Amino acid sequence: MSKETTKLQKEEAREAFKKKVYSIMFETSTPQGKKFDLLLLAMIVFSLFILIIESLPSLSPTTRLVFYILEWILSIIFVGEYLLRIYVSPKPMQYVLSAWGIIDLLSILPVLLLAFTDSVIYFRIIRILRLIRIFRIFRINQFTREAYSLYNSLIASVYKIAVFMFFVVMLAIIMGGLMFMVEGKESGFDSIPESIYWAIVTITTVGFGDITPLTDAGKALASVMMLLGYAIIAVPTGIVSVEMFKQRELESKQGKQKCPQCDAENSSKAVYCNQCGNKLVSGELKVKS
Amino acid sequence: MSKETTKLQKEEAREAFKKKVYSIMFETSTPQGKKFDLLLLAMIVFSLFILIIESLPSLSPTTRLVFYILEWILSIIFVGEYLLRIYVSPKPMQYVLSAWGIIDLLSILPVLLLAFTDSVIYFRIIRILRLIRIFRIFRINQFTREAYSLYNSLIASVYKIAVFMFFVVMLAIIMGGLMFMVEGKESGFDSIPESIYWAIVTITTVGFGDITPLTDAGKALASVMMLLGYAIIAVPTGIVSVEMFKQRELESKQGKQKCPQCDAENSSKAVYCNQCGNKLVSGELKVKS
Amino acid sequence: MSKETTKLQKEEAREAFKKKVYSIMFETSTPQGKKFDLLLLAMIVFSLFILIIESLPSLSPTTRLVFYILEWILSIIFVGEYLLRIYVSPKPMQYVLSAWGIIDLLSILPVLLLAFTDSVIYFRIIRILRLIRIFRIFRINQFTREAYSLYNSLIASVYKIAVFMFFVVMLAIIMGGLMFMVEGKESGFDSIPESIYWAIVTITTVGFGDITPLTDAGKALASVMMLLGYAIIAVPTGIVSVEMFKQRELESKQGKQKCPQCDAENSSKAVYCNQCGNKLVSGELKVKS
Amino acid sequence: MSKETTKLQKEEAREAFKKKVYSIMFETSTPQGKKFDLLLLAMIVFSLFILIIESLPSLSPTTRLVFYILEWILSIIFVGEYLLRIYVSPKPMQYVLSAWGIIDLLSILPVLLLAFTDSVIYFRIIRILRLIRIFRIFRINQFTREAYSLYNSLIASVYKIAVFMFFVVMLAIIMGGLMFMVEGKESGFDSIPESIYWAIVTITTVGFGDITPLTDAGKALASVMMLLGYAIIAVPTGIVSVEMFKQRELESKQGKQKCPQCDAENSSKAVYCNQCGNKLVSGELKVKS
Repeated sequence: MSKETTKLQKEEAREAFKKKVYSIMFETSTPQGKKFDLLLLAMIVFSLFILIIESLPSLSPTTRLVFYILEWILSIIFVGEYLLRIYVSPKPMQYVLSAWGIIDLLSILPVLLLAFTDSVIYFRIIRILRLIRIFRIFRINQFTREAYSLYNSLIASVYKIAVFMFFVVMLAIIMGGLMFMVEGKESGFDSIPESIYWAIVTITTVGFGDITPLTDAGKALASVMMLLGYAIIAVPTGIVSVEMFKQRELESKQGKQKCPQCDAENSSKAVYCNQCGNKLVSGELKVKS
Repeated sequence: MSKETTKLQKEEAREAFKKKVYSIMFETSTPQGKKFDLLLLAMIVFSLFILIIESLPSLSPTTRLVFYILEWILSIIFVGEYLLRIYVSPKPMQYVLSAWGIIDLLSILPVLLLAFTDSVIYFRIIRILRLIRIFRIFRINQFTREAYSLYNSLIASVYKIAVFMFFVVMLAIIMGGLMFMVEGKESGFDSIPESIYWAIVTITTVGFGDITPLTDAGKALASVMMLLGYAIIAVPTGIVSVEMFKQRELESKQGKQKCPQCDAENSSKAVYCNQCGNKLVSGELKVKS
Repeated sequence: MSKETTKLQKEEAREAFKKKVYSIMFETSTPQGKKFDLLLLAMIVFSLFILIIESLPSLSPTTRLVFYILEWILSIIFVGEYLLRIYVSPKPMQYVLSAWGIIDLLSILPVLLLAFTDSVIYFRIIRILRLIRIFRIFRINQFTREAYSLYNSLIASVYKIAVFMFFVVMLAIIMGGLMFMVEGKESGFDSIPESIYWAIVTITTVGFGDITPLTDAGKALASVMMLLGYAIIAVPTGIVSVEMFKQRELESKQGKQKCPQCDAENSSKAVYCNQCGNKLVSGELKVKS
Repeated sequence: MSKETTKLQKEEAREAFKKKVYSIMFETSTPQGKKFDLLLLAMIVFSLFILIIESLPSLSPTTRLVFYILEWILSIIFVGEYLLRIYVSPKPMQYVLSAWGIIDLLSILPVLLLAFTDSVIYFRIIRILRLIRIFRIFRINQFTREAYSLYNSLIASVYKIAVFMFFVVMLAIIMGGLMFMVEGKESGFDSIPESIYWAIVTITTVGFGDITPLTDAGKALASVMMLLGYAIIAVPTGIVSVEMFKQRELESKQGKQKCPQCDAENSSKAVYCNQCGNKLVSGELKVKS
């Protein structure tokens, strides 16, 4: 029986430990949680710094070796951190499948795949996405609110932009095909995919100039296309502007929120109740971490 | 008499056949119609895939031959399909002159013209326009509605954009002429049409860089032109934004629609009546196919 | 006395003649006025056509001579037309100083200056501005109204855009100076004016690529500048959009106009009174010709 | 005692002198203040003119020497002016730390640092910022009001634009890293910082073309990136448009202001009271000089 009790106690202790680690790793309200997140941020920034330095061609072999070892150490820490996060989560799958879980996985993927050679290594740049946590850690409310507002506007216009993109890509394919037909293979329009690449460069008004029409017919067709693209570029701007306007209207209409503790009316932008000082939920970013 | 009856029966059978084929070819509400459209879409995508592969320079003669034969087979099918569509239409001319009829004709034109050699072949890229059917087949209501809304906004601003384009082209011609005068023939401004092409590349902010001013006067004039173009690019965006805003206002004002079956009020975005489940017309794309 | 009467009659006849010619040259409501304007348009288009052909490098000397003579004939006609316009105007100075008078003068300036040699000849391209008459001749009411509406929006935002341009040019000068300092003379940043030209090319997102930063510091500074320009490009669009929105609001508020003949209420967009069919003034372009 | 009185009188005289000089240097309402500011503007413009001329490569040593001496004289005057401004200010630190104080300091910094050799000299271009005074001197009320209105709109959207820039830079870093991985070092994507520079050039649609993808995978990735950038460019425009709209609404709502002298109602845009002719404060730029 004592053995069983010990087992139970152990189990309880483990649960308490998991809970504590969870609060440190996933929350930022406790001082320890904040410290952990700051440490993590610092390590991510340092890891990105190593990555960028490593990419410079003029690096002595010794420095390269030092950075190589440092990167291995950081990568092993990140893998451990990921496994620990899964271990302490009450619902591990929920974490793994969340946006943050996927970003965390992608960040360590090059290590997991032992693809620590060649240029695949640079896929680690995706780690920068983990820096979005910065909004959460520093609780810069004005920023998170604006980020959330931007996010809402974009979500509201996602269908319109998808439809728009469908037609832009279609236009790029048609124009690419026609330019390939008109210009022939001498001008750098070597194949249809190449021409579609050129068409996208042109419609988006980037205009690298690595491929340009040489024949008169090609230049005429390109001119029509550029004027068309000129009018077309107005469309996504119009879409987003209107949604932002509606979002802004909505925000100023919502106006009021009730404090759940004392029932006092507060501005929807309030972070603390102006009567009882209770922390209000609406002041925080609603994106789950 | 029996002969006449047979004739009449034949006529009737033919009419019934035409009606059935029509419903398969032009409608997507029946399972057969949907299957037909999916098959057609697959063939169009395959045809485009062939076209793009054919354009690659590094293709073995055997592969090229195989693709050549496949393309011929697909083209003959598309020609047959076009003729059948005309045959089964109750009002053939209406189909031929509709937007879809013209796209279908353009898609098979290279074959009809027996222009199956040289680079005219690549005009087949226009077949991609037939993919717009995708909206119709999958009945992605949200998308068709957004497409329709975008379409309305653009139609409403078409006059303003036409006037704007008139002045932009005029500005490009004047600027092209002046640059030709200032730069002379040494800098790549070989003729006025060439200079107008350059002016369009510049005003639309594409900026390939294949032709650039070399003299000081040319650079000064180009600078003025770019600053002008910078302010001008705001115009189409303004036009489209305002129309989209009005369109959006209109949509949210319409607000309600009555179910034609049970007279219940429904949201204008509803696809089925919320009282009797009757399919509402407004939820569909109003563009005729 | 008879002599005096003759003189008076002559005077009167001349006045009547001047009035008639005036109505032909300046008005488009009479069939003769319309015919005159159409002929003029045709001659301007032909003159522009000659100008463009003349600029092509691959032209035989004979063709060049023919075009040279044709251009001389047209130019003399235009000079004659300009003088006649002054002669028949009741207030000649008003015509000369009007927008149209200045455009007409600029169109014949190269001839007047006998600068019919060299490349100054291409300044004739400015003649294209006379094509704006097309709106007046064809009385395409929808277009003139839209042109007028665009014009109003731009006029309303002219102060804001001027202030904006002041700051953009200032930014371009500062950035040009800094890039010249950072890049040195090896990279194509040969002088400050050259660098300012580059800065304008970059801020306006044209990006020819004829001059590009080569040093790391230069690339970093250019990156900051491009991101700045990215945010800045939003400003003129915002200005114009808001003015267009206000203009549009104004137009839909004005709503009604009274027919000056029968006092019936008409939409502000009406061209003819819906009660008596009287032509309404508001349907026409208010810009004086 | 007479000595003390003299001292006191001297002190008073000095105070009066300081006050007078202050009003000349810092204010523009007196004729002398206006003259001083005009002289200063002229000297700044002349100094910028020298700077630009000096940067031209084709300059004879004699001219260069003359300009060198002139620049030294102007610089000493500007240093003297800065010291005098500090001396006559009632609260010197307030001036030194104000926006104008910092600009004035930056303008003379190259001289103070005795860095009057090499290319650091061109940092003097920052002097152009002092030209903003032009709004104050000429009291072009319409312009200052528009500048103020633009300024307000930008301030109101500064958080949203900061958040947007955070994500754009993040996207540029990720895309730069991926392109470096995909393209390898042969295509000009020499290092990650170089690739990030390319990504910024591409996302902002500048598109110099000094570095372009050469591999198929690189072109595909670049295409995705350009289409993404195409949608993204809509965001700052949307942000600024909405804020400008709100600003404009606010301005037209404010509508009225009371004259502090006679209590008469005036338009908020009025510069003088329409009853008593009293100068109204609101008509001036609220930015402190």
